[in-house]
Amino acid sequence: MRSHYCGQLEKSLVDQQVTLCGWVNKRRDLGGLIFIDMRDRTGLVQVVFDPDQAALFETANKLRQEFCVRLKGTVRARPESQVNANMATGAVEVMADELEILSRSEPLPIDFNQHVSEEARLRFRYLDLRRPNMNHNLQFRARVTSAVRRFMDDAGFLDIETPMLTRATPEGARDYLVPSRTHKGKFFALPQSPQLFKQLLMMSGFDRYYQIVKCFRDEDLRADRQPEFTQIDIETSFMTADQVMAVTEQMVRKLFNELLEVDLGDFPQMSWHEAMRRFGSDKPDLRNPLELVDVADLLKDVEFKVFAGPANDPKGRVAALKVPGKAGDISRKNIDEYTNFVGIYGAKGLAWLKVNDLAAGRDGIQSPVLKFIPDDALQGILERTEAADGDIIFFGADNATVVAEAMGALRLKVGEEHGFVSDEWRPLWVVDFPMFEEHDGELHAIHHPFTAPVGVTPEELKANPAETLSNAYDMVLNGVEVGGGSVRIHDNAMQQAVFEILGIEKEEAQEKFGFLLEALKYGTPPHAGLAFGLDRLVMLMVGASSIREVIAFPKTTTAACVLTDAPGLANPDALQELGVAVKVAEEANDND
Amino acid sequence: MRSHYCGQLEKSLVDQQVTLCGWVNKRRDLGGLIFIDMRDRTGLVQVVFDPDQAALFETANKLRQEFCVRLKGTVRARPESQVNANMATGAVEVMADELEILSRSEPLPIDFNQHVSEEARLRFRYLDLRRPNMNHNLQFRARVTSAVRRFMDDAGFLDIETPMLTRATPEGARDYLVPSRTHKGKFFALPQSPQLFKQLLMMSGFDRYYQIVKCFRDEDLRADRQPEFTQIDIETSFMTADQVMAVTEQMVRKLFNELLEVDLGDFPQMSWHEAMRRFGSDKPDLRNPLELVDVADLLKDVEFKVFAGPANDPKGRVAALKVPGKAGDISRKNIDEYTNFVGIYGAKGLAWLKVNDLAAGRDGIQSPVLKFIPDDALQGILERTEAADGDIIFFGADNATVVAEAMGALRLKVGEEHGFVSDEWRPLWVVDFPMFEEHDGELHAIHHPFTAPVGVTPEELKANPAETLSNAYDMVLNGVEVGGGSVRIHDNAMQQAVFEILGIEKEEAQEKFGFLLEALKYGTPPHAGLAFGLDRLVMLMVGASSIREVIAFPKTTTAACVLTDAPGLANPDALQELGVAVKVAEEANDND
Repeated sequence: MRSHYCGQLEKSLVDQQVTLCGWVNKRRDLGGLIFIDMRDRTGLVQVVFDPDQAALFETANKLRQEFCVRLKGTVRARPESQVNANMATGAVEVMADELEILSRSEPLPIDFNQHVSEEARLRFRYLDLRRPNMNHNLQFRARVTSAVRRFMDDAGFLDIETPMLTRATPEGARDYLVPSRTHKGKFFALPQSPQLFKQLLMMSGFDRYYQIVKCFRDEDLRADRQPEFTQIDIETSFMTADQVMAVTEQMVRKLFNELLEVDLGDFPQMSWHEAMRRFGSDKPDLRNPLELVDVADLLKDVEFKVFAGPANDPKGRVAALKVPGKAGDISRKNIDEYTNFVGIYGAKGLAWLKVNDLAAGRDGIQSPVLKFIPDDALQGILERTEAADGDIIFFGADNATVVAEAMGALRLKVGEEHGFVSDEWRPLWVVDFPMFEEHDGELHAIHHPFTAPVGVTPEELKANPAETLSNAYDMVLNGVEVGGGSVRIHDNAMQQAVFEILGIEKEEAQEKFGFLLEALKYGTPPHAGLAFGLDRLVMLMVGASSIREVIAFPKTTTAACVLTDAPGLANPDALQELGVAVKVAEEANDND
Repeated sequence: MRSHYCGQLEKSLVDQQVTLCGWVNKRRDLGGLIFIDMRDRTGLVQVVFDPDQAALFETANKLRQEFCVRLKGTVRARPESQVNANMATGAVEVMADELEILSRSEPLPIDFNQHVSEEARLRFRYLDLRRPNMNHNLQFRARVTSAVRRFMDDAGFLDIETPMLTRATPEGARDYLVPSRTHKGKFFALPQSPQLFKQLLMMSGFDRYYQIVKCFRDEDLRADRQPEFTQIDIETSFMTADQVMAVTEQMVRKLFNELLEVDLGDFPQMSWHEAMRRFGSDKPDLRNPLELVDVADLLKDVEFKVFAGPANDPKGRVAALKVPGKAGDISRKNIDEYTNFVGIYGAKGLAWLKVNDLAAGRDGIQSPVLKFIPDDALQGILERTEAADGDIIFFGADNATVVAEAMGALRLKVGEEHGFVSDEWRPLWVVDFPMFEEHDGELHAIHHPFTAPVGVTPEELKANPAETLSNAYDMVLNGVEVGGGSVRIHDNAMQQAVFEILGIEKEEAQEKFGFLLEALKYGTPPHAGLAFGLDRLVMLMVGASSIREVIAFPKTTTAACVLTDAPGLANPDALQELGVAVKVAEEANDND
């Protein structure tokens, strides 16, 4: 029906007749002529209707915003003075010869070229997606998936589909359940990830697997979470952690090269312990140069309990965060605000120190806690942080987790607010994670319970689980964890040991993972893999602020679709057939 | 870890050292040597261990079936006399230098190289998938999806994901329901297809969309159905039915060319009415040359009510199926069996006639109903069916639906049993479907209620729905419907008219499809699309007998996964949080 897309028109096509299909983005009547900006997925082009062609002009006169039309016309160069440099096709316009109105539009409920509420955008998503940047985002996403697939195909990875109707697993977050009709009273779960299936595929000998696949988590939604999200899921046999990192790093570098013309360079590696120590985070944003500096050893002997307590506690930590040159910019009011901010992460206060005049000794230092810091400690802190006149130093002193979380978050906030964050791409690998972390006296797997430990036997692991490192790796880009993976356990005894440490009883393990434990008996190859969060990766690449901007039909923060009004009430007969009943207090429904 | 795959080894690599990773497919001890067939996803290669290397030989001596190993060795040519022509790598073998046992295997619960029960195959699927033809099937499937995606990408189609958690729609089959936690008492449905979302994407201006996507139907499973199945889903704007057929036909031809080296040629088109008339099916298998021949006009005046009744009924039909040269092969016992067979489709009997000697007139004809057929009718039937000596002719006489179904099925069965089905690829397009079909006095949409009628206004459609044709098209290959699609309604009034004809009240339409009707108001482009059943397409291409053979982890015919034991009992706390309760009589659970 068309010969060209609007966005393709350019000077080389002058005098050529073209047929376009698209929408009236805007209409202007000027000097007796009718001008429209015509839009399709590639962009806009200006079309001119001349009153000399009476019938054509009469039809054109009916055009309103978002009418869907087909038109024939001749491309012509705009006069120098009328070239529109803000428009990709601004050097040309189309002189219309024929016009067909394919479909009319009522006045729009939202003007998608203006700012409208998130709710309205989602309710009229089909209009919101006409917005050029949304259209661009989804076209870009399609280019990302296409490039990923070509890379993986060329690297010998097989795209194999895993089931959506699966068995519930206790993988941290909550499952979406699906009642079964043929097995009344029983439920499927939607997968949180294809983890076990991709491991089984390695046991089947497929060697290299990938899939771009929907995963599901029924949990409270944050700004960058959706109940259904998409993973680039990868698993390999006979490859080491370094080899998996190499091939996936190559893929991401290729993506950035091809789609953004950015060379990410070689990704540095950093141990989890270093990341926590220097940045208070397992996904440090390296665009931000501010760093935490440990000073506990300097403060062990001070009388001030706020410092001395954590400094002498093996699980405690005292860290300094120097913000260079900002002593003058950061007021008492700012500091109060930062104190409240770190309170969110459990910090009980925020000590600080301004370096006004280093040459003046103690007199050149301003701090409410100055009196508690002896000279040698003060000197040690100033030297270790390489403090200079005009710097301000914040202190976190608490258990190591609180210090990392609070000071890590403060680092990001101050860095952002005071212009320390550079405009570049800073990828890295975080490696050498501990196998387990302790919450409330219990050990939890940091990655998942199928992650292999480094260099221990099952007995050694059981003897010292807290100190054992896992063979896991996370890819971090600009402070966002875009991917994570690990070498998997390929040995039945090791898998049982991990379950044991996690407090999963033998019976429970058998009940939940019996098929995996069984499968591990029959020549399981060493295998390792990784999964990328596609939504977040695309969000980063297009510079969007939420994954909702790169998903065609996302859910709201209450996990609803306001466009189709889902979820909805189920047909009572259907529920009866499924053998389930709704049990909700009346008022619960009214709250929706 | 490896330098080559097993299946890659060939004569050009002789004298080269290679490193292989894989499984011990078989071990043989012969003449003091140990031979193993080593397997990976590419195939097998023979490895030889020499007792001269004592340590190596000792390790090799531990090898059992399905041990997972890595080995280094040197490729050497086998002597002419020992070349194995049945093995792709049969001209070479590997003389082992180093061997590492990566993982041991207990004796296998199933021998996947032998025939085992379907239940056992699914329970130990990870072993069953090691079976070379299963491994091949899934690798082939990955090549199909890869080729489809490259074709679609190159043709400007955008891969856009649509939601899995959607609103229930009444699209014929039953929805899988998913209880919502944040909106207790309400449910999502898993999509039966992304139909409405892909139409919305056209309204958003994406122009060309495709997706390889999971769809769900909670219905009784037949041999070629699965609760979750995969669609190649396509939608376009500004394209006619012919253009959609052209581009999708081109895609399928390319697939067959690239992956099977088969040229399917141009696909013929056949109207639905012709297909029903000649083959009694809307998905005729053109490899089978047998055809139905209508003879009602010849039998209107006979006394025999079995023929005369349907012959004189506008909704009746009398059709003859000639089976050339098989009068002698088809016994009375066979005919009794066929009579039972057509009974499944509602036929009350199966009249037949054998042509023993055409020259002998009535005496040369053998038939229990001969006495009911006057000379002129008999002559007419023999002429119209072009009967010759040795032919047998079956008759179906009933309402048109029963005749088509019964005689269409008989055509396939007889054709199969008596060697009429050729070994070739016979694609076609079936077009010009009626919009609606009548069941129990009610009209139902043959495709779905968003399918556009051909050449009528909404008023004309309402005046004569039963006679109106739809702008729909099905792609049929060797009697299997591999794809189907249509031009969609892009006009609010037409969509409302179709809902009205289908007995969907205005309120109900608003409640269920309000968002679609609303969306149709704002410059909806003309759009059309198609969906392929990927599982069936791959099944046909690899020559498998069931889609379970081309799905990694299929469900059983009772929609269960015997590998993971899904569905399972849900956590009572989880159900409580979801606001649902199980309501099943005790015995129902015991039946599982």
